Amino acid sequence: MTADTTESRVLAAIDARRSRINEAIEAELPLKKPERLYEASRYLLKAGGKRLRPTVTLLAGEALADVEPASQNYRSFPTLTNTDVDLLRAAVSLEVIQSFTLIHDDIMDDDNLRRGVPAVHNEYDTSTAILAGDTLYSSAFEIMAETGGEPKNALAAMRRLSSTCTKICEGQALDIDFETRTDLLPDEYLEMVELKTAVLYGASAAIPAELLGADDDVVEAMYQYGIETGQAFQIQDDVLDLTVPSEELGKQRGSDLVENKETLITLHARQQGVDVDGLLDTDIVDNVTEREIDDAVAELEAVGSIEHARETAEQLTERGKDRLAVLPDNEARGLLKDVADYLIDRGY
Amino acid sequence: MTADTTESRVLAAIDARRSRINEAIEAELPLKKPERLYEASRYLLKAGGKRLRPTVTLLAGEALADVEPASQNYRSFPTLTNTDVDLLRAAVSLEVIQSFTLIHDDIMDDDNLRRGVPAVHNEYDTSTAILAGDTLYSSAFEIMAETGGEPKNALAAMRRLSSTCTKICEGQALDIDFETRTDLLPDEYLEMVELKTAVLYGASAAIPAELLGADDDVVEAMYQYGIETGQAFQIQDDVLDLTVPSEELGKQRGSDLVENKETLITLHARQQGVDVDGLLDTDIVDNVTEREIDDAVAELEAVGSIEHARETAEQLTERGKDRLAVLPDNEARGLLKDVADYLIDRGY
Repeated sequence: MTADTTESRVLAAIDARRSRINEAIEAELPLKKPERLYEASRYLLKAGGKRLRPTVTLLAGEALADVEPASQNYRSFPTLTNTDVDLLRAAVSLEVIQSFTLIHDDIMDDDNLRRGVPAVHNEYDTSTAILAGDTLYSSAFEIMAETGGEPKNALAAMRRLSSTCTKICEGQALDIDFETRTDLLPDEYLEMVELKTAVLYGASAAIPAELLGADDDVVEAMYQYGIETGQAFQIQDDVLDLTVPSEELGKQRGSDLVENKETLITLHARQQGVDVDGLLDTDIVDNVTEREIDDAVAELEAVGSIEHARETAEQLTERGKDRLAVLPDNEARGLLKDVADYLIDRGY
Repeated sequence: MTADTTESRVLAAIDARRSRINEAIEAELPLKKPERLYEASRYLLKAGGKRLRPTVTLLAGEALADVEPASQNYRSFPTLTNTDVDLLRAAVSLEVIQSFTLIHDDIMDDDNLRRGVPAVHNEYDTSTAILAGDTLYSSAFEIMAETGGEPKNALAAMRRLSSTCTKICEGQALDIDFETRTDLLPDEYLEMVELKTAVLYGASAAIPAELLGADDDVVEAMYQYGIETGQAFQIQDDVLDLTVPSEELGKQRGSDLVENKETLITLHARQQGVDVDGLLDTDIVDNVTEREIDDAVAELEAVGSIEHARETAEQLTERGKDRLAVLPDNEARGLLKDVADYLIDRGY
C-alpha cells in the first residue's frame, strides 16, 4: 500500500493548502473592469485544477526554511536572512502562468474541453481567449513582483519566471513541429517535454529558493528536482494513456497512438524495428476497438518499449528526489519526495 | 517652418539611434531554435517600425543623466548613483513588447497587413502568431531583467513593464467592447486610449528614470509625459483620418467614420446633437465617395468637433511637455519636447 499512502499524503498536503491558495488567487486576481476580460481570465482558474505547482512552491519554502508544514503565515514567510516574503504570491503567480498556457494551448490545439468545462475560446471567443491569456501573463509578473523581501531575490524570481515562460513557448513550438517530423529522436522528445511541461515544475521549486535567498547550488538543485520529476510525470502520462482502461482515463485508451502522437514509447519501438505507423489501421479515435489497442500495446510491450518508458520515468524520479539532499532533513522535504513519487504512481 | 524643423530634429534623433537599436534587437533576440518560432517572432521587428518608443527611452536617459545626446555607450550608461545600466536593453524590451501587442492585435482585429507586409498570422498561421507573441512577451521581460544596475531599480522597471502590459490588455478589451457600445462617454474613450496606446509611451519614458535611480516624483512626471503625449498622438490620429487626403493617408480618408468607430470627434458631435450614425449612408469603405466624406466632415466641423479634438490633443501635448520641467535643462530634454510636438504635428 506504499503507493496509496504516498498518494494520500500528497493529497492531504494539497488539501491543507488549497483554500489558502484559492483565496490568494481571488485576492491577487480580483474580478475588476473590464469585467468580461477578467471573467474570462479567471474562468479556468476557478474551474479547478490540482494546485500541484503552488503546493510544490509552498512545500519547497517550508523545507528550506525548516518549518513545520502548513504552520506558517505564507504572506509573511521567513527567509534565510532577516526579511519576510509573501510566498503565497509566488505560488499564485505560477498557477496563473499555468492557466495562461492552458488557455493559449487550447486555442492552438483546438481543444474544446478543459477541466470538464468548455475551453475559454469556446466559452467566450478566440479574441477574448488570446487577450485573457495575455492578461494572466502580465498579471503573473505583477504578482511575482510584489513578493517583497530583498530586491535581488525578487529580481532573480522575475528572471526565472521570464525564462521559464520563453522555454514553455519553445516547448509548445517543438510539440507542434514534431507532429510533422518523421525522424524524431528520443532525446529531442525529452527536450520538448522538459521545455513544455517540466520547466514550470522547475520554476515552482526553484523560485521559493530564490526568494528565500538560498545559495545558487540549492536553487539549481531545486530546479533540477522540478525538471526531472516534471519529465517523469509526462512520460508516465504517455504510459498511462496505453495501460489504463478507458473508463478510468476518461477518454479512449491509446488515443495518442491512434492520433500518431510520438512519445518515448513509440520512439523506442521504432528503434527496435517496430512498424509503429502500421500498428493501427485508423487515425480516428472513434473508429478504434479495444481489441486493436490491446494488440498494439502487446506489440509495444513485446519489444520492451512500455517498460523502457516506465523505467525512464522511475529513474528520473529517483534522480529528482536525490536532488533534495541539499535541503534540511524535515517533513516538508519528505512531502516533496512524496510529490515526486505521486507524479508517477498516481492513477488517473 | 517650425513644424518642419521639429520633425527634422526628431527624425534626426531617431536616425542617430536606429542602427544601435536595431543591432541590439538582433543581439538580444537572435534567431535560434526552434527556428520557425523565432523567425515568426522577429518578423515584424525586422520589417521596420519608427523605433519611436526606444528612442524616447534613450532620450529620457540622456536628459536625466544630463549627457550629450547620442554621446554615450548605451550598454554601460551612467546612472544617478555609481552603477551603470544597459539602457539599450530597456529600449529593446519596450520595442519587443510593442511588437508582441501588434501581432496579437492583428489576430484579434483580423488585420492582414502590417508595416507593408502580411501580418504574422497571415505570413505564418494563427497558432504560430499566438506563440510568437507569447515568446516576445517573456523575452521582453528576460531582456529587461538584464539591464544591470541596482536590483531595486531593475525590479521597479520589471514591475512597471508588468503593469503596463496588463493595462494594454485592458485597453484592447475596452476597444473591442466599445464596438458594440452606444452610450460611450468622451472620458471612457480617453481612458481606453490611455490604456491601449499611451501607457507604453509612459513606460518608455518612466523606465529609464527608474533604472537610473531617479526620485519617485521624477519617475511619475516622466510617466505622465508619456501618457499625455501618447493620448495626444492617438487623438491626432483620429483627426488626421478625417482631414488628410486619402493619397497621403495611404487609405480612404474617413474610414473610421465609415466603419462607425467612435472617436473623441464623434463623441463630441453626439453631445452637440449631431446624428453621427446618419452622417454616411454606408458602412463599407469601398462604397463611400469623397463628396460624402466632405459633407460629413463639414458637419463635424460646423459643430466644432474636429477643432475640439485638435485642441484636446494640443492641450495634452502642452501638459506633457510641462512635465519635463523635472529634468535638467539640456538638449535631450529639448528633443523630448520635440517628440511630443512631432506626435501631433506630423504629417502622415
